[in-house]
Amino acid sequence: MTGNDHLNDALGKLTADMLASYEAEPRTRRIGETFLPSRENIYDILDEIRELVFPGYFGHKLLTNENVGYHVGNLLVRLGADLTEQIMHCICTGHRCPDCAASAPCNDMRVCAADAERMTTEFLQRIPGIRRLLALDAQAAYDGDPAARSIEEIIYCYPGFYAVTVYRIAYELHAIGVPLMPRIMSEHAHAVTGTDIHPGARIGESFFIDHATGVVIGETTKIGGNVKIYQGVTLGAKSFPKDERGRVIKGLQRHPTIEDDVTIYPNATILGGETVIGRGVTVGGNAYVTSSVEAGRLVRQESPRLEVLDKKVKSSDPVKPAS
Amino acid sequence: MTGNDHLNDALGKLTADMLASYEAEPRTRRIGETFLPSRENIYDILDEIRELVFPGYFGHKLLTNENVGYHVGNLLVRLGADLTEQIMHCICTGHRCPDCAASAPCNDMRVCAADAERMTTEFLQRIPGIRRLLALDAQAAYDGDPAARSIEEIIYCYPGFYAVTVYRIAYELHAIGVPLMPRIMSEHAHAVTGTDIHPGARIGESFFIDHATGVVIGETTKIGGNVKIYQGVTLGAKSFPKDERGRVIKGLQRHPTIEDDVTIYPNATILGGETVIGRGVTVGGNAYVTSSVEAGRLVRQESPRLEVLDKKVKSSDPVKPAS
Amino acid sequence: MTGNDHLNDALGKLTADMLASYEAEPRTRRIGETFLPSRENIYDILDEIRELVFPGYFGHKLLTNENVGYHVGNLLVRLGADLTEQIMHCICTGHRCPDCAASAPCNDMRVCAADAERMTTEFLQRIPGIRRLLALDAQAAYDGDPAARSIEEIIYCYPGFYAVTVYRIAYELHAIGVPLMPRIMSEHAHAVTGTDIHPGARIGESFFIDHATGVVIGETTKIGGNVKIYQGVTLGAKSFPKDERGRVIKGLQRHPTIEDDVTIYPNATILGGETVIGRGVTVGGNAYVTSSVEAGRLVRQESPRLEVLDKKVKSSDPVKPAS
Amino acid sequence: MTGNDHLNDALGKLTADMLASYEAEPRTRRIGETFLPSRENIYDILDEIRELVFPGYFGHKLLTNENVGYHVGNLLVRLGADLTEQIMHCICTGHRCPDCAASAPCNDMRVCAADAERMTTEFLQRIPGIRRLLALDAQAAYDGDPAARSIEEIIYCYPGFYAVTVYRIAYELHAIGVPLMPRIMSEHAHAVTGTDIHPGARIGESFFIDHATGVVIGETTKIGGNVKIYQGVTLGAKSFPKDERGRVIKGLQRHPTIEDDVTIYPNATILGGETVIGRGVTVGGNAYVTSSVEAGRLVRQESPRLEVLDKKVKSSDPVKPAS
Amino acid sequence: MTGNDHLNDALGKLTADMLASYEAEPRTRRIGETFLPSRENIYDILDEIRELVFPGYFGHKLLTNENVGYHVGNLLVRLGADLTEQIMHCICTGHRCPDCAASAPCNDMRVCAADAERMTTEFLQRIPGIRRLLALDAQAAYDGDPAARSIEEIIYCYPGFYAVTVYRIAYELHAIGVPLMPRIMSEHAHAVTGTDIHPGARIGESFFIDHATGVVIGETTKIGGNVKIYQGVTLGAKSFPKDERGRVIKGLQRHPTIEDDVTIYPNATILGGETVIGRGVTVGGNAYVTSSVEAGRLVRQESPRLEVLDKKVKSSDPVKPAS
Amino acid sequence: MTGNDHLNDALGKLTADMLASYEAEPRTRRIGETFLPSRENIYDILDEIRELVFPGYFGHKLLTNENVGYHVGNLLVRLGADLTEQIMHCICTGHRCPDCAASAPCNDMRVCAADAERMTTEFLQRIPGIRRLLALDAQAAYDGDPAARSIEEIIYCYPGFYAVTVYRIAYELHAIGVPLMPRIMSEHAHAVTGTDIHPGARIGESFFIDHATGVVIGETTKIGGNVKIYQGVTLGAKSFPKDERGRVIKGLQRHPTIEDDVTIYPNATILGGETVIGRGVTVGGNAYVTSSVEAGRLVRQESPRLEVLDKKVKSSDPVKPAS
Repeated sequence: MTGNDHLNDALGKLTADMLASYEAEPRTRRIGETFLPSRENIYDILDEIRELVFPGYFGHKLLTNENVGYHVGNLLVRLGADLTEQIMHCICTGHRCPDCAASAPCNDMRVCAADAERMTTEFLQRIPGIRRLLALDAQAAYDGDPAARSIEEIIYCYPGFYAVTVYRIAYELHAIGVPLMPRIMSEHAHAVTGTDIHPGARIGESFFIDHATGVVIGETTKIGGNVKIYQGVTLGAKSFPKDERGRVIKGLQRHPTIEDDVTIYPNATILGGETVIGRGVTVGGNAYVTSSVEAGRLVRQESPRLEVLDKKVKSSDPVKPAS
Repeated sequence: MTGNDHLNDALGKLTADMLASYEAEPRTRRIGETFLPSRENIYDILDEIRELVFPGYFGHKLLTNENVGYHVGNLLVRLGADLTEQIMHCICTGHRCPDCAASAPCNDMRVCAADAERMTTEFLQRIPGIRRLLALDAQAAYDGDPAARSIEEIIYCYPGFYAVTVYRIAYELHAIGVPLMPRIMSEHAHAVTGTDIHPGARIGESFFIDHATGVVIGETTKIGGNVKIYQGVTLGAKSFPKDERGRVIKGLQRHPTIEDDVTIYPNATILGGETVIGRGVTVGGNAYVTSSVEAGRLVRQESPRLEVLDKKVKSSDPVKPAS
Repeated sequence: MTGNDHLNDALGKLTADMLASYEAEPRTRRIGETFLPSRENIYDILDEIRELVFPGYFGHKLLTNENVGYHVGNLLVRLGADLTEQIMHCICTGHRCPDCAASAPCNDMRVCAADAERMTTEFLQRIPGIRRLLALDAQAAYDGDPAARSIEEIIYCYPGFYAVTVYRIAYELHAIGVPLMPRIMSEHAHAVTGTDIHPGARIGESFFIDHATGVVIGETTKIGGNVKIYQGVTLGAKSFPKDERGRVIKGLQRHPTIEDDVTIYPNATILGGETVIGRGVTVGGNAYVTSSVEAGRLVRQESPRLEVLDKKVKSSDPVKPAS
Repeated sequence: MTGNDHLNDALGKLTADMLASYEAEPRTRRIGETFLPSRENIYDILDEIRELVFPGYFGHKLLTNENVGYHVGNLLVRLGADLTEQIMHCICTGHRCPDCAASAPCNDMRVCAADAERMTTEFLQRIPGIRRLLALDAQAAYDGDPAARSIEEIIYCYPGFYAVTVYRIAYELHAIGVPLMPRIMSEHAHAVTGTDIHPGARIGESFFIDHATGVVIGETTKIGGNVKIYQGVTLGAKSFPKDERGRVIKGLQRHPTIEDDVTIYPNATILGGETVIGRGVTVGGNAYVTSSVEAGRLVRQESPRLEVLDKKVKSSDPVKPAS
Repeated sequence: MTGNDHLNDALGKLTADMLASYEAEPRTRRIGETFLPSRENIYDILDEIRELVFPGYFGHKLLTNENVGYHVGNLLVRLGADLTEQIMHCICTGHRCPDCAASAPCNDMRVCAADAERMTTEFLQRIPGIRRLLALDAQAAYDGDPAARSIEEIIYCYPGFYAVTVYRIAYELHAIGVPLMPRIMSEHAHAVTGTDIHPGARIGESFFIDHATGVVIGETTKIGGNVKIYQGVTLGAKSFPKDERGRVIKGLQRHPTIEDDVTIYPNATILGGETVIGRGVTVGGNAYVTSSVEAGRLVRQESPRLEVLDKKVKSSDPVKPAS
Repeated sequence: MTGNDHLNDALGKLTADMLASYEAEPRTRRIGETFLPSRENIYDILDEIRELVFPGYFGHKLLTNENVGYHVGNLLVRLGADLTEQIMHCICTGHRCPDCAASAPCNDMRVCAADAERMTTEFLQRIPGIRRLLALDAQAAYDGDPAARSIEEIIYCYPGFYAVTVYRIAYELHAIGVPLMPRIMSEHAHAVTGTDIHPGARIGESFFIDHATGVVIGETTKIGGNVKIYQGVTLGAKSFPKDERGRVIKGLQRHPTIEDDVTIYPNATILGGETVIGRGVTVGGNAYVTSSVEAGRLVRQESPRLEVLDKKVKSSDPVKPAS
């Protein structure tokens, strides 16, 4: 390995140009500002929460009735310290966001720290509740997938279950008012599973997502109990109502309501804040639904007629999407 | 970094509540039970197998004709030890699953260990066969993608090829009867590539998946030789026939049969255990196929008519799904 | 952990069989050849470039006006060395590819090294330009997503923005003529985000991809300024025109042209090198477009009629794709 | 980095020669035998014990009255598991040693495991006692070194105190009958501090070693309370009485007895199992003592006369030991 | 690996006993107190300073005239941040020490931080001076050891030079008033080299220690320029003058003064604050010197008469110190 | 953690001063020069050699008769590559040393590489010979230390044996002509054990060092077979004969000759190139020997008379060397 003389000669100018670029475009630099929260540490926090929620599954320790109490107390201390630090960074970063520009930024780390400590404790108190919901979700996955061999397999392997786990955690942090962190968590689950659930969505008990890739669930979606969805399902918005200045009107429900006991098959799309899929409805694969469906119905895309052709099609024929 | 007094005061109660939660919901805890297999170690095992199957590609060693024998023998020893240990954990965990509740759990680690040793050796004997198939798959990818520059690029970079590699490994472990591990492997490939191939599917020679994201191939799918599929393709089940007690009847083929020389374009969906796509068929993009197609045909979705509108649509118009 | 006698006895034969397999199938082994570029190092290079492009975001250092110059110069040196080394490996590997078989391989590492040094410097000179484009992309994401709270959130969390970042880097490397590395980078972004953008595509200013999973953008796609696309969109080829020997004719545009100010909603598919989506067009969700659309229009899939059925459907009914 | 052809050509012969060398000299190979205990793991065990003995000093956690109980319980579980595993390896290795050749080796890992579990618990019960002694040793160091600023500085920095800490741990393990591990621990302290204390030595309360380098304390040494020694002190054996077959007669005290309140200055040497240094004695620097000294005396080397010469010494003069 | 039931049963009592032990002996626990400085971080700081002082030697970077400025600026930033943090911890810990109990502890982290920032900058300003001295020390080693092949070998390999390097760094930190850190540094060098130099000692230019093991240089030692010493040399105190309450009287010189151009051969001992070894003196190996020697003399131990005996010595003869 | 404004303001000047210091003192900087060999890599090489020499001891692998051949071949490849790289760096660095200034530096990396490859192979061929000697050394330690329980304990734990192991390796590299590396190795052993053996010393079979700390063995020492030495022994030079220009005359033996079957007890010093300790001699503890002793004799320091005083010594009495 030898040096790169070419680069060496250009080094001074390259550096100057880069600094000039920082001057020219200040939106994408953070110079003289506080630390952002650490994404790596937030992923570790997710792991710690999972270790707490599913004792004996994650982490490499044999738990017994005798040692589990020490394990839990100790894990709470570690998790509490990690959460406090990262929530504080999230608050500090968040105070600079446009939405709170009206109120003066706090400029006082100790206020942020006090908030972070309170939010951390509040979140930890909610973990037993998260645990109760996830047990129901795991059971729903077991009941809903005939290929599942055990609850353990679901907790340990199913991407859809992982996406729901992270959602239930992010939802509580979002509800407590922690900025940024719920988003970082949900994007992590998105990267791992291909399922994008906004932390603001409301999802009832016994929820199951099978295969997971390509699912999108929007911020104001409401989902009842005992709902099951498959890969590629979008629960999205139509257009956004705007005020006269062209700004999106906030506080409105933009995404659909899915009532109890609904099943939605792969690649179905359901759009709109006024769209209500009634109790017990089944939505067929590929269906594109933009208005409400009453309870108890089965909705499916009218099968488009298939053309079955002889292979002698012309080469200009539009059948072959390819790389 | 200072302590969190708020949390400190709550620590005793938080711990007690968490322990009570474990009592209340025993399905999602493993206390007083054996270790689960390690997912991280199983990912390492996948890397070791790839190093063995594609010598000189992965791992950081210059192989020569003189040193390759030592390298291989040594890698087999390492892989063999890692596989034996993890298969043993998989067997121990698996014995507790509902499906084998009828037979008494073995309660004897040495039996599991002996099984694990035998299965490990059996699997290692199959690697040359896996290698032969993967060479054909790589060639198929090279022939099938005009953008491919070399076989090396395919082996080193293509996510679809990675998904097939993991499938062929997981398939053999599944065939030998190793529990849980094939699933952990296929979910790993799923997370990395967005392609979800069940280890029980049967896939012939010279198979190629392009772009990979969103592909789902179900457990009882049968795929012939020289088949090519694109992103977003689902080879799935319709509904599952159930017995009078509402339990899925096992042993039936629930997923389609794809014969030799078939090409399936992006986002096509093919469903059902009795659906046979005959030799040489081409399935067009977005097609939704639920019944058999005879050999040599080209099947495509009848193009739905596009509406081309003036932009003065009303703001309530359902065209804009958004976050 | 004890030894595996079973395996031990078979070790000699297993090794011999594996070596025989290498002999039998030489396409998938690299014995007696140079090192491939390191994917891990190339991922690190991506991280270093991001640290340079978005100062203060990635990496764990507090930047100030006083220290940022040293930081940048130092980072350029490190990045320069890493790039030079990996580009050299890419060139060495690339010279063996079929496409350049006509010209004699260089067989002279120093030539490769000189090329690598020149290409590295050339790339580093382009980073301020990349930075300018990414600032516009970040602003476009902020303007385009009402849920976005700040530019920081976009840079730090949005998978679509990450995919575009990697694309803009890979594009410049591809333009300079670096082999293999752009592909490795784009497949990395593909794995993380589910978005597959070929480094050869041309994409204008202020580009935004929302939700990201399942997007495919082909090699010869041309995209104008201010374009926004959603999850699951494919910009693909129809069939490839071939010469009389059956080889794809190179140099033709196989993928569509998207003009300025176009928005494409989820899961829409647009195919073909002669397909031009005119300025300001909106393409609705799920639309399947294979011919040009003139400027200013709104194109949407004619809503297929939904069947709303009573739940008493027959069990053989093809509505339930499942695992 | 290129390959080494020279080596490549010789590889087969080099390997064969090495294997022949293993055949020729079996004393220094372990082929087909159990694992040795892990030195790295045993060093980690020392760190864990220190974390337990001096809470809040080592390890990176803020301890409070509320969390310390969970911390301790959890640390005991971790330490207990690590100790059990390594003690088991020590027992397995030890059973092959010449001294127990008379009794048949156990050949039953479960017996070793049961012994290891019992010994581990026994050791953990002794830690409060070790703690009590080390508090007195720390106080003795603080009182004995006018340069010491605080007890914390001693616990955190003093090599002599570290050597004593490891000795007190190794002594208890040795007393319980754990083979090999005490030796590995004492050699670790020896490497770090230059002080070599045999785990079998008996040392009373309030013991202090200053500067530490070069101290040797033999196996059958007996040291009373409130003793202070300096760098380079040897408490050693004279010759070993042997039986008629030339074997050392075991069970005899070969090293000296040091009574309470003795101070021994640097580089003094005290030899012999019958040598008793009485209560309150002070031994001067460089003294070479091979017989007993009665209580209350000050013993010093008679100052050898110094020659003070003019510098015009001949070049052959033996004053200049050098490298 | 199975659990240890024996330990499991005892766990509650073991924990309670340990907590009782913490109550009983509060001197050796830190519960509810601030963090100690991190020894690992302080060792890293030493490495960073060495990288700064000897550019191109340590760290893995090719330095050129073009890049060295960025490297230095960047390293100063990193070192500055690390030093500030650890010095702050040192100050916080130090304020609790007995010696400053009279003055109220500050209880205000921001005061400590401000002091730490000032001290850090002050230290960094002294590094060029340290560099100048170390260049002279390296030259002295090269001139003084005929076996030395190059200055590089000395800087890179010689333990005596490493001990002097750490001393010169620790001395400046001690002079600036940083508590605890100089001690941690000098004990680190002590562990690595066997040479124990108190940070308070004053040592002139061009100092060389050969072989290093066992050297002790006390707190109030004064050493002139161009002095060379060998392994095992002690420059120590006699007894300490005490006041009527038995406390050591501070501020007095307790260790010897060594003037310019002195050479001290292995294992020589020189004691006492009033002992002055005059300019140009040579002290022979093993000499034990407790009073002053005037300039220009050669001092050596009068050779003790060697007894050369026939081997038929009695077995009780005190010649064989052994383990 | 907040920034250090104090430092920030000074940063520019600090950097400039540091650069000026590099200009002012060029002896201690390496700017624009090749890489030094890596000490960390050389320590790893030592570990690899030990793994090869003592199979089954170091490294974490269960060796069997079936797998040991693959293990050895593979380890030779790895060790060979590491050695080749580091020896090349050693040669490149060495060519700049003053001693070879007469001959032009090679300036051709390929020449160095070829030398490095040849030297590497030559060294590997010598490992069986090293192994034979170390087996004898281990046996000698076992026979010589009545406290030793097994050969394994010696190989695994004894610092003196480690020092001899490293010496035998460094000796062969030195004999082959590898610059710098033997020194780096011997200083590593020196740091770990306190024993400093020059790689140029010649030491016969069955050599044993007990306790190890403080031993120094000079470059031209010759030691016969079956020699045993204890801690603190120096085998050193008297003064160095110099030529008329004051340069040390090379090629002369400056250190003593120790014949077969000699034992040297702790802290003895033997000096001078003409000093021969004859076959079978025993040298007593603390003896200071500067002339030859004929075979079969026992040499001991005439016991200096001990003064045994009443404790009422004056406080000015020079008996208390202390810190």
